[in-house]
Amino acid sequence: MHFFSDNATPVCPQVMAAIAAADHADHGYDGDAWSARLDGAFADLFGTPVRALWVSTGTAANSIALACLCPPYGGVIAHEEAHVVVDECGAPGFFTHGASLLTLPGDGAKLSPDAVRARLKAIRPDVHQVPARALTITQATEYGRVYAPDEVAALGEVARKHGLGLHMDGARFANAVAHLGCHPGDVTWRAGVDVLSFGCVKNGGMNAEALLFFGEQADARAAEAARWRKRSGHLFSKGRYLAAQILAMIEDGLWLANARAANAAAQALAEGAEGRLMQPVEANELFISLTAEEAAALRAQGFDFYDWGEGAARLVTNWSQDAASVAPLASALRALGRGAG
Amino acid sequence: MHFFSDNATPVCPQVMAAIAAADHADHGYDGDAWSARLDGAFADLFGTPVRALWVSTGTAANSIALACLCPPYGGVIAHEEAHVVVDECGAPGFFTHGASLLTLPGDGAKLSPDAVRARLKAIRPDVHQVPARALTITQATEYGRVYAPDEVAALGEVARKHGLGLHMDGARFANAVAHLGCHPGDVTWRAGVDVLSFGCVKNGGMNAEALLFFGEQADARAAEAARWRKRSGHLFSKGRYLAAQILAMIEDGLWLANARAANAAAQALAEGAEGRLMQPVEANELFISLTAEEAAALRAQGFDFYDWGEGAARLVTNWSQDAASVAPLASALRALGRGAG
Amino acid sequence: MHFFSDNATPVCPQVMAAIAAADHADHGYDGDAWSARLDGAFADLFGTPVRALWVSTGTAANSIALACLCPPYGGVIAHEEAHVVVDECGAPGFFTHGASLLTLPGDGAKLSPDAVRARLKAIRPDVHQVPARALTITQATEYGRVYAPDEVAALGEVARKHGLGLHMDGARFANAVAHLGCHPGDVTWRAGVDVLSFGCVKNGGMNAEALLFFGEQADARAAEAARWRKRSGHLFSKGRYLAAQILAMIEDGLWLANARAANAAAQALAEGAEGRLMQPVEANELFISLTAEEAAALRAQGFDFYDWGEGAARLVTNWSQDAASVAPLASALRALGRGAG
Amino acid sequence: MHFFSDNATPVCPQVMAAIAAADHADHGYDGDAWSARLDGAFADLFGTPVRALWVSTGTAANSIALACLCPPYGGVIAHEEAHVVVDECGAPGFFTHGASLLTLPGDGAKLSPDAVRARLKAIRPDVHQVPARALTITQATEYGRVYAPDEVAALGEVARKHGLGLHMDGARFANAVAHLGCHPGDVTWRAGVDVLSFGCVKNGGMNAEALLFFGEQADARAAEAARWRKRSGHLFSKGRYLAAQILAMIEDGLWLANARAANAAAQALAEGAEGRLMQPVEANELFISLTAEEAAALRAQGFDFYDWGEGAARLVTNWSQDAASVAPLASALRALGRGAG
Repeated sequence: MHFFSDNATPVCPQVMAAIAAADHADHGYDGDAWSARLDGAFADLFGTPVRALWVSTGTAANSIALACLCPPYGGVIAHEEAHVVVDECGAPGFFTHGASLLTLPGDGAKLSPDAVRARLKAIRPDVHQVPARALTITQATEYGRVYAPDEVAALGEVARKHGLGLHMDGARFANAVAHLGCHPGDVTWRAGVDVLSFGCVKNGGMNAEALLFFGEQADARAAEAARWRKRSGHLFSKGRYLAAQILAMIEDGLWLANARAANAAAQALAEGAEGRLMQPVEANELFISLTAEEAAALRAQGFDFYDWGEGAARLVTNWSQDAASVAPLASALRALGRGAG
Repeated sequence: MHFFSDNATPVCPQVMAAIAAADHADHGYDGDAWSARLDGAFADLFGTPVRALWVSTGTAANSIALACLCPPYGGVIAHEEAHVVVDECGAPGFFTHGASLLTLPGDGAKLSPDAVRARLKAIRPDVHQVPARALTITQATEYGRVYAPDEVAALGEVARKHGLGLHMDGARFANAVAHLGCHPGDVTWRAGVDVLSFGCVKNGGMNAEALLFFGEQADARAAEAARWRKRSGHLFSKGRYLAAQILAMIEDGLWLANARAANAAAQALAEGAEGRLMQPVEANELFISLTAEEAAALRAQGFDFYDWGEGAARLVTNWSQDAASVAPLASALRALGRGAG
Repeated sequence: MHFFSDNATPVCPQVMAAIAAADHADHGYDGDAWSARLDGAFADLFGTPVRALWVSTGTAANSIALACLCPPYGGVIAHEEAHVVVDECGAPGFFTHGASLLTLPGDGAKLSPDAVRARLKAIRPDVHQVPARALTITQATEYGRVYAPDEVAALGEVARKHGLGLHMDGARFANAVAHLGCHPGDVTWRAGVDVLSFGCVKNGGMNAEALLFFGEQADARAAEAARWRKRSGHLFSKGRYLAAQILAMIEDGLWLANARAANAAAQALAEGAEGRLMQPVEANELFISLTAEEAAALRAQGFDFYDWGEGAARLVTNWSQDAASVAPLASALRALGRGAG
Repeated sequence: MHFFSDNATPVCPQVMAAIAAADHADHGYDGDAWSARLDGAFADLFGTPVRALWVSTGTAANSIALACLCPPYGGVIAHEEAHVVVDECGAPGFFTHGASLLTLPGDGAKLSPDAVRARLKAIRPDVHQVPARALTITQATEYGRVYAPDEVAALGEVARKHGLGLHMDGARFANAVAHLGCHPGDVTWRAGVDVLSFGCVKNGGMNAEALLFFGEQADARAAEAARWRKRSGHLFSKGRYLAAQILAMIEDGLWLANARAANAAAQALAEGAEGRLMQPVEANELFISLTAEEAAALRAQGFDFYDWGEGAARLVTNWSQDAASVAPLASALRALGRGAG
């Protein structure tokens, strides 16, 4: 059983069915009937007007979002271990034409309002220094941690006061909302989020993510994003096959159902890994202390996962699992005993 | 019956089946078993070593290709009506970081070696003028015209002599090869083509194109292209669903079968449109003179297509059609009589 | 005597004196007393509020101007032989991050309102095509031609109607105004020009040009330009030596005096070259038909200049000349007789 | 007496004289007699073949250097307080088209080989992470610290092993060499430096810096740099006025004489500030602990300087000073007594 990544998992059946159901002639690009339903479907989901664009990857969603928020001479405040900083081969620099990533540390890959304020205060308001124009946070974070609504709102307040656009990388947004049990609006537009990369691929989609714009500037930013989408080669000729995936995810609650399954699997593993957890388990990722010998023992039992530096490992659960299906690994972890770390 | 665009057509059944067949867990990105077969499958098809990368759109394929051939301070020679010039919202400028498109006229959207040579001669070899570093041609062209092998070879020779990389935009490469009846190598690497955007989407694919590198620099360029693909957000998490589409196209000759069907449909229409043809019909596009009244009459009969400026129209056939299925439009055109143009 | 280029000429004495006079300690960058006087001095000259920044080259001035007017996905309408198109190694593409140059032909390197309107009309308002956002004209043009106030105003009207920012490359603005005998405001802000590259170097300066912003958006654009200036390495540590050059040019009418001298020299040559002129002589450049033998004969008499393709030559006069000082060349031209062209 | 910055100081007389002496007609751009002497003059100075280009600012020199060493998808290792990181408004991101700055801490703004090696080791060799391609160090550093030859050589060795180009920002290179008393080659090409920004402006120049390329790739990189220089608007029409400044600096040892004067002034102040120094004084900058009251007292005596955060100040000496001329400030500092820090 593999715990490498939610990317390694197949597409969930409802999404496959939706793709098949979209297999008709229609207008090209985003002129089709499926794409036309996106704005409304997301407005229903979030309880506010939304401008929604399909894109095909999380990197594209994040980068286009940042390009809409930050000029080339500006800076984007981000956690130093954020996906946009360390795992996109400089894509934000490409799409923003060289804007600076102003990075900060923070437990669990979370940013704190104090850290952001301190960073902002250190920037001289002259032409020699890059002015911060955007703030990006990841929900759930790269360490599987979740921002509560008031935590997002506190960051949103800092952003608003300093004129920063607030972007949320929601590659695992569904897992975060499933964990919080809140309305999706509570951790987004109600908390000051301007743009959301709403992830589908890790949650059972094939190759569609949604880029969502909230608030007064939504129309202007979405129009700009449409330009960036085309200009970066992300305007698909047959967009209906992307729109259909997204609609399948959100119109009947599949996004939450899938995320709950993955989260439940992670909780089951967390119980098995008591004493080894390097981070609280809030979404579908576990970071555990694990010696090389222990790792080898688990692999010998058929469990696959990535090492996370020396003496540690990362386990990622996914939509196709649940507490029952990962019970064998939970047991195997329990059998190893409490870790040293 | 619609003749808007090959983009409006559904995905062909074999490609849908291949996508379904790829629906298994595997490594993410291009680490999967399907992606691993691409180089070999294309080498078999072209009769020479090939480095192949899947990308999701023709714009991405073309732009990454040009970024691998031309530095930011360089120029790309292209036809003034080429897709890269007029229909990609400046994507080549984005991926090449501002390289110049050095445009030329030419009948049927084809470039001639003489025109290219004259353009090259006009560039002063100083730092004030942009040096040409790449040449891009479209096969079949934006007017449905096809370069014969010796025509490509003549351009390839000019490119080689002047140190230009030669790129072929093959969004309708299958239609061109089906028309020529030649080996695909004859109009590509044997004729000096360095990089080919091998189109699948217009020919029955869903959202996968192949970017192919030939020749001595193939490895180095493909390595660079892999960086651009990631950096531009085009490295899909679940690449196997793209690779599977491409393999379905090329491993059993589907690409040619589909193109032959579309071309045959176009020929049937061409016979019906005798006296109206603005360009010889060599692939799956027709450009015909047609008055507004005639256009209205055809539309009233259920035929949909785009106007092409005043007094003209464009008809595009596709893989799902053939001579028989488009007979009604052929008859309707014949019934209009010979055009005025 | 050389007629290569106004760039080859020394700095005029008043500018050298101003540089020497600025040789005091002062705040760095543009925080000095000289830089502080620029806005006011140009407001006096143009009769309207102006935001002025020194830059060091015409290419920098033009490129920063275009970056302030056009987004990366936009297009700049320009003459196909404009300096920004053919002689800046793609600098506009660099500063605008890949905006497209939408080029047009036109006699004497001048653009006509009709040509611009036709070009604009041909752009489809979808995301596939680059939207025009700026129009740039050169005054005097690359062929030494001058736009009259009403000609600029007609272009300004087209620009205003279509939402284009209007930039004027005034590398030889002084020569144009000297020829027209009009107020400098008549061919700039009163005629709809938003940004002017006010040239000094060709007119006797050492290495300072002024970038001028007019109108309601002047403050916002100048603030953006200040970012681009820094970011492109054009914010000099000791800016006072640039500001002093510009002030010396404009505060006592030196710019017009120098230009009149150069223009008068050009007129004297034009009389000598009767029958050979390929363009009317309106500023300080002559384009004349001249056989290789005739060119050799002139060079043998000590006159240096550039060939302009086969059978033609370009002669450029400068601030250090006047009708009397170029009389020897005027006579030599007259002695050759009327040209064949 | 001001100690704000070496930028605030006038141009030294020998440089002014050289500018005046260059005031003749000559070919434009870098086709003149002064520019032609640069390569040879620097080869004599450094004892090895050098390719030298004049540029006008340190930011331009640094940025063009990095653009020659690092592709857009690559990374540049730099100190987190380096000028290229914090004081150039993102210029390296502009010139490199979005390459990443991979920043490291380090005492005195110096990088250690161990820190660089650790940073390199943390980069996964896949397409998701930005590969390091260049290393940039500042000599003297932003805290006035100097790398000894063996320290540079150790960094050069790391760079060579990992395929990084090594750039040295030498805005205060003269001060560093004056401090070390070594041959300029010892801390540059003999220690593995590939490209040097050789500063003149802070050392008495007006607006000329030299960009120097060493080693086997010098020709190729200089050719590329010439493109970037033009494309970024830094190819001056009248380049001789820049070349003349640089030649005046290096042909008769002026660069070292000026730096020695500034360094001596700094040493005199350091003696006066005993007990307050936050960094060893090795070049022409002092960072001292100073209360607000003490700062006010000094300013009341006519000494101007910048605060450096709370409770600290920065004092910069320059070529026009020496130990004797700054004696009043040295005394005033001594009179304050030993600081608290």
